[in-house]
Amino acid sequence: MKLNANYDNIQNSYLFVEIANRVKKFTAQNPSADIIKLGIGDVTRPLAPCVVEAGVKAVEEMGRAETFRGYSPDSQGYDFLRDAISRYYAAFNVKVAPHEIHVSDGAKSDCGNIVDMFGDDNVVLIPDPVYPVYLDSNVMSGRKVIFCDSTEGDDFAPLPDKNVKCDIIYLCSPNNPTGAAFSYEKLKAWVDYANANGAVIIFDAAYEAFVTEPDVPRSIFAVEGARTCAVELCSFSKTAGFTGTRCGYTVVPDELCGGKFAKMWARRQSTKYNGTSYIQQRMAEAAYSEEGIRQCRENIQAYQKNANLISGVLESMGIYHTGGKNSPYIWLKCGMPSWDFFDRLLEKANVVGTPGSGFGKNGEGYFRLTAFNTYEKTAEAMERFKKIF
Amino acid sequence: MKLNANYDNIQNSYLFVEIANRVKKFTAQNPSADIIKLGIGDVTRPLAPCVVEAGVKAVEEMGRAETFRGYSPDSQGYDFLRDAISRYYAAFNVKVAPHEIHVSDGAKSDCGNIVDMFGDDNVVLIPDPVYPVYLDSNVMSGRKVIFCDSTEGDDFAPLPDKNVKCDIIYLCSPNNPTGAAFSYEKLKAWVDYANANGAVIIFDAAYEAFVTEPDVPRSIFAVEGARTCAVELCSFSKTAGFTGTRCGYTVVPDELCGGKFAKMWARRQSTKYNGTSYIQQRMAEAAYSEEGIRQCRENIQAYQKNANLISGVLESMGIYHTGGKNSPYIWLKCGMPSWDFFDRLLEKANVVGTPGSGFGKNGEGYFRLTAFNTYEKTAEAMERFKKIF
Repeated sequence: MKLNANYDNIQNSYLFVEIANRVKKFTAQNPSADIIKLGIGDVTRPLAPCVVEAGVKAVEEMGRAETFRGYSPDSQGYDFLRDAISRYYAAFNVKVAPHEIHVSDGAKSDCGNIVDMFGDDNVVLIPDPVYPVYLDSNVMSGRKVIFCDSTEGDDFAPLPDKNVKCDIIYLCSPNNPTGAAFSYEKLKAWVDYANANGAVIIFDAAYEAFVTEPDVPRSIFAVEGARTCAVELCSFSKTAGFTGTRCGYTVVPDELCGGKFAKMWARRQSTKYNGTSYIQQRMAEAAYSEEGIRQCRENIQAYQKNANLISGVLESMGIYHTGGKNSPYIWLKCGMPSWDFFDRLLEKANVVGTPGSGFGKNGEGYFRLTAFNTYEKTAEAMERFKKIF
Repeated sequence: MKLNANYDNIQNSYLFVEIANRVKKFTAQNPSADIIKLGIGDVTRPLAPCVVEAGVKAVEEMGRAETFRGYSPDSQGYDFLRDAISRYYAAFNVKVAPHEIHVSDGAKSDCGNIVDMFGDDNVVLIPDPVYPVYLDSNVMSGRKVIFCDSTEGDDFAPLPDKNVKCDIIYLCSPNNPTGAAFSYEKLKAWVDYANANGAVIIFDAAYEAFVTEPDVPRSIFAVEGARTCAVELCSFSKTAGFTGTRCGYTVVPDELCGGKFAKMWARRQSTKYNGTSYIQQRMAEAAYSEEGIRQCRENIQAYQKNANLISGVLESMGIYHTGGKNSPYIWLKCGMPSWDFFDRLLEKANVVGTPGSGFGKNGEGYFRLTAFNTYEKTAEAMERFKKIF
């Protein structure tokens, strides 16, 4: 038996291991230091009350013969949830039909599994800096990957280069790690480029609920022409705090590859996936109810308040940064190598963040702060930040 | 962009569509017929009380700041569940360490995703008749698939043919659809064959909780030599009624490919999967607690009572069959083509089952009945059965 040799080409990321090691070493030497973590890449606020209520009800239904549910009738999701997601899109004027929505246990699964749809001889275009899953999941299939520079010159929301030919394009907006978001015009340029090249855009919309600027599309399907060239991955993780609960969805428009893409994805999922738990589907439905959206929004606003605080301090200090406005991430220019900045922030302010160089070569000299700590801790961290820079 | 051309080679299965169509047509012509379904391939009894209790508690924990859980610390599962699964194996004298257990949302996902571990130039050996996922998930990757005949001659538990060379072997015991199970000796023959050929066995143990005969291994790791040649897929679906709740696990022994297989699987899962919901992991832990095992066993015994009833009737009528003893499936010899038998059973007895020919060429002339209906309906169906054959 021959193992998949492509796995030998995946690079190990030691970013978070190295952060943990440096923090551990510092804490050992400075046991009384009050360390504040602004490197958290995960939600911290509990699920909304109506989501919990729906979850309890669904679990209890599973315990009674008359309401018990076995395999879901369709591995793509129950109608009640696909309808709720379709209405959610409609609320920001994007038309997505329920049958175009494929429910899953999370966007990371969909992001990893969607590569099954493509031949191995396609060329993949990935921005740098980047969320590493896009790269690793294609290296595992042996695909050629090329990078698109994302830099200060374009405020970390790059435009396509018409001289570059590629087949599969990954875009994430609002972006992880930079927090930058595409304007309608910039995203339209990508859609036009993809259509002109017969390429497909895999659009990661996981952070859409953080968008505040009216010119920033919350879905690629807000952009004219996207229905012939894009799939969208989205999730309840950041919108409703489902990182440990697990539920996401992928939107495949009817027009993509003349309907063939949707059929292939449905076939992949019905063969290699047995549907998302009824319990999570009921919880997700509650999150996208009117009450659920209101309750989840309170959590997002709390994170946004932190993001605004961080941005405001950087603004007042004249430090170049992206994100914060439409994202829980703030990406700032260090004025020194990323790891030097990490050490200085840790040693002088006892604040932990994430070196940008860990996300790709264009991340060198940048640093990521996140809005997922409490307001009090975030305020205290930024007070200390002001004092040392 | 080039789509994955291998998808054009997947055959569509119309088995369950055709069954539904024939039942629909019959019901339209005979609206008063009292149809009994012995074709159900899904559990029907509710979750055990202690599993429901654990689920409610976990959902409520997610709703409080102090007990909320985000991303799981390890995408392979929480220690509390991996420990519980390890103890579950120990109870039937199989030693599997917690770190060798990789928790997932279900065995179907693992079965579909495990093919990522292998190069596309391996030869896959699949018994016929067979659960179609083994075949389809390999056709999607363009692998060569050869079949191993499973027939009455070996009581549908075939032995390996030493003249056949292959790299990846799928075995399911107790089997879907035949209900047949491998004795220790037969499974040992497969393990020896795999080790001699440098092949890997993917062992589907989804029905292990139905095993009653002491000579039938509940895990391939009960067999000497399996740790160097096998991975095992298992699930809470049939054991604890989780088909709509979703939780499963894969066991990868340290010895497989000198530890490389386990590392690759962990890497695949941490890249393309973000861990199983905390809620399901707590529910699964409860199912494998002492009380949970006792409560789940009551459900399994109810299905086994139905299986024994069906087997007993066939026995008394002198009809050749496999399964029932260690499985909720009973596979009987029709004495006519499978679809003719289907029509006769539907028309004369108003009982629905599954034609064996839908599971492969060696299924022709056979028929599957299942134990997932109520005892009363099963008894009534078998009374009718006796009258017409």
